[in-house]
Amino acid sequence: MSAGTLSELAHRLGDALATVRPAAATEDSASSAPVESVATALLGFVSEPGDGVLGRLVGALGVGGAANALLEGRSGTVIAAQAADGLGPSDAPSAREVAAGLARWRPRLDEDAFARSIAQAARVGARLLLPGDADWPAGVDDLRAHAPLALWVRGRPSALTERPSLALVGARAATGYGEHVAVEAAAGLVDRGLAVVSGGAYGIDGTAHRAALAAAGTTVAFLAGGVDRFYPAGHETLLGRIVETGVVVSELACGAAPTRWRFLQRNRLIAASSHATVVLEAGMRSGSLNTAGHAAALGRPLGAVPGPVTSPASAGCHRLLREFDAVCVTNAAQMAELVASVAAGASVGGEDDGSGGAAEAALPRALEVLTSAERRVLDALGTRRARAIGELVRDTGLTPGAVMGALGALDATGLAARSGEGWVRRPPG
Amino acid sequence: MSAGTLSELAHRLGDALATVRPAAATEDSASSAPVESVATALLGFVSEPGDGVLGRLVGALGVGGAANALLEGRSGTVIAAQAADGLGPSDAPSAREVAAGLARWRPRLDEDAFARSIAQAARVGARLLLPGDADWPAGVDDLRAHAPLALWVRGRPSALTERPSLALVGARAATGYGEHVAVEAAAGLVDRGLAVVSGGAYGIDGTAHRAALAAAGTTVAFLAGGVDRFYPAGHETLLGRIVETGVVVSELACGAAPTRWRFLQRNRLIAASSHATVVLEAGMRSGSLNTAGHAAALGRPLGAVPGPVTSPASAGCHRLLREFDAVCVTNAAQMAELVASVAAGASVGGEDDGSGGAAEAALPRALEVLTSAERRVLDALGTRRARAIGELVRDTGLTPGAVMGALGALDATGLAARSGEGWVRRPPG
Repeated sequence: MSAGTLSELAHRLGDALATVRPAAATEDSASSAPVESVATALLGFVSEPGDGVLGRLVGALGVGGAANALLEGRSGTVIAAQAADGLGPSDAPSAREVAAGLARWRPRLDEDAFARSIAQAARVGARLLLPGDADWPAGVDDLRAHAPLALWVRGRPSALTERPSLALVGARAATGYGEHVAVEAAAGLVDRGLAVVSGGAYGIDGTAHRAALAAAGTTVAFLAGGVDRFYPAGHETLLGRIVETGVVVSELACGAAPTRWRFLQRNRLIAASSHATVVLEAGMRSGSLNTAGHAAALGRPLGAVPGPVTSPASAGCHRLLREFDAVCVTNAAQMAELVASVAAGASVGGEDDGSGGAAEAALPRALEVLTSAERRVLDALGTRRARAIGELVRDTGLTPGAVMGALGALDATGLAARSGEGWVRRPPG
Repeated sequence: MSAGTLSELAHRLGDALATVRPAAATEDSASSAPVESVATALLGFVSEPGDGVLGRLVGALGVGGAANALLEGRSGTVIAAQAADGLGPSDAPSAREVAAGLARWRPRLDEDAFARSIAQAARVGARLLLPGDADWPAGVDDLRAHAPLALWVRGRPSALTERPSLALVGARAATGYGEHVAVEAAAGLVDRGLAVVSGGAYGIDGTAHRAALAAAGTTVAFLAGGVDRFYPAGHETLLGRIVETGVVVSELACGAAPTRWRFLQRNRLIAASSHATVVLEAGMRSGSLNTAGHAAALGRPLGAVPGPVTSPASAGCHRLLREFDAVCVTNAAQMAELVASVAAGASVGGEDDGSGGAAEAALPRALEVLTSAERRVLDALGTRRARAIGELVRDTGLTPGAVMGALGALDATGLAARSGEGWVRRPPG
């Protein structure tokens, strides 16, 4: 395909594109051209959330350049050389990284499937939010190379930015105690003019959303799959109600199913888009600790609600208090203070100290989910076709020993599994 | 009386003195002479715990010198001048302070009552422990001018020093949750070779002592009254059992009843004699927070056990976590780590940086019970005869405004009360 392809694609999408990206919504945007919108949506469609290689490629070539490089079938070596021209050799992805990236992205480069996804987005009333839009939550840009390229939103996008926000997250397996505290907290935060951000899950998340709605407040739900199909299914009504006054957000294209990896990456958006994060109940291995780790890595204030030391559902919160310097918060007023502490200091997403990966480097190791090798191996795995070790060595550029070590860790955390002679990403669950 | 009076007093006490202070027990002591023992016991008998004026006077004149000054009826001016010779004008108490002190001490200078107290101590098998004795808990010396002059002990004095110790304190109004955690904690601390120190009270204290005994461990109880009469009465059996394998300790002479002031001062001994302090359950105004404040002021590690944010019995613990940088501890292993952190660093009571009141200055204000003015006014109040404002102004050397402000605060915290035209110390409660 030629550089004209993006325009052709935009033309083919027609009304659907105009629906998800109406001219009125793009007035403030630097990426308002339909071609830019299509390129961004396409890159999101073919990649997994938080793909740092793609992020750096976009940083070097722009979304149009990166999408064209992919569409035109250039080799990893050629693309890497172009990226190095744009970005300098230290930040640009290597030829090997780009080649591995292309191996991940090209199999998903299906124009029909992409068009169906956009049509589906238009059908459910989803809109495509791009960096630079007035409603873009600037905090996510702190994720740098791992920042989302775009966000799919249903509801009122301004709910993302119109007021300071606090992420209230916790265990699916919440106790009556945790749910009671979540109700009080969410209602109290709404009273204080804050938006309540969470992950739409059962347990603490759902309770927080519900209590915010009951208090006629603003609430924001980040999903790990496309916004066309609400997950979990039992929260379809709840998420539908959030769309009416708040907003449901995902960086996944419509049609994309949630996976473990996507849940973990979704957590980074919850932490990055909010002014502060509070963990309300969390077991020792709860996904909420992953959200907390992202908040800490991004320098966002982190609070934890204590509970009985006899309750496993509070063990993760106590760990945050002991080991990660989380602030002990016992009510909405103390949670709101966390946000106030940010408002008084540097604004979220408003600064850039040029240190690049500093935020990531600061991620507490014990809470970080993946090493760089694990991330690369996971990136190279598919959910269907099993990959052999040799293949992974080639795709990742890691040594066989490093690949096997990473697979062991991914196996232990449930992100990858053996399948016949090779390895696959674990299916959603 | 003359300088010979102390010898005469020692002679009069006779066998009782030999019982509470047997020659064998004093081999390691610098204060082994009977006269020194009598002088120390006498000064303790006439003063309230933590009397800093007396502490500074003893620092300047020694126990014998201070006791003689009192016995011989010298004026405050003369004694202050002698003290300044010994200590220099900056540390020595002023003439006004000494005069106010004499006004507190002299009314209690009753030889018969003193002899009865010593006889009672001998009868119940109490012993007089002095600074420099092998079993003296060196940590209390960190209290400097407010350190105890002597300790009355019943049981096995070496229980005070033979192993590292942790103070486990908490609310009298403990919940089932708090008592459950106290049992687990005390048993686990004993398993780890630690002595469990507490205050012998109902609730957390008693539960901690009991669990330590049940685990065949060492436990130490500090009382706010004489060790001849166990308080609370409902813990007579428990404290009797502690005497069999551990030790019951007080700086009050036998016959002295517990008072609010003495409870607060007893708390400083719990904190100072232990390597670390853990508060297990405490309401927002619990006396345990006073113990915690002393621990923090002395630079001892301070832990707090979290609980449900819905439980008022845990509110004080959460406050310690939020505002006073207490370490969140959820089990005995984590509590033992607090002690290990001390053992790895400076030894308790083993250092002297010459900074004098630095420890006191570091006492978190919000947890500190009394300002210096409040302390002086309280020192000048009696439990029986009401004192008029004018009298208090004279005794304390404070302005009328300062005296009235202090009385207001003492009234609010229940330490003093109006009585007719004047003010009294609140009776024990």
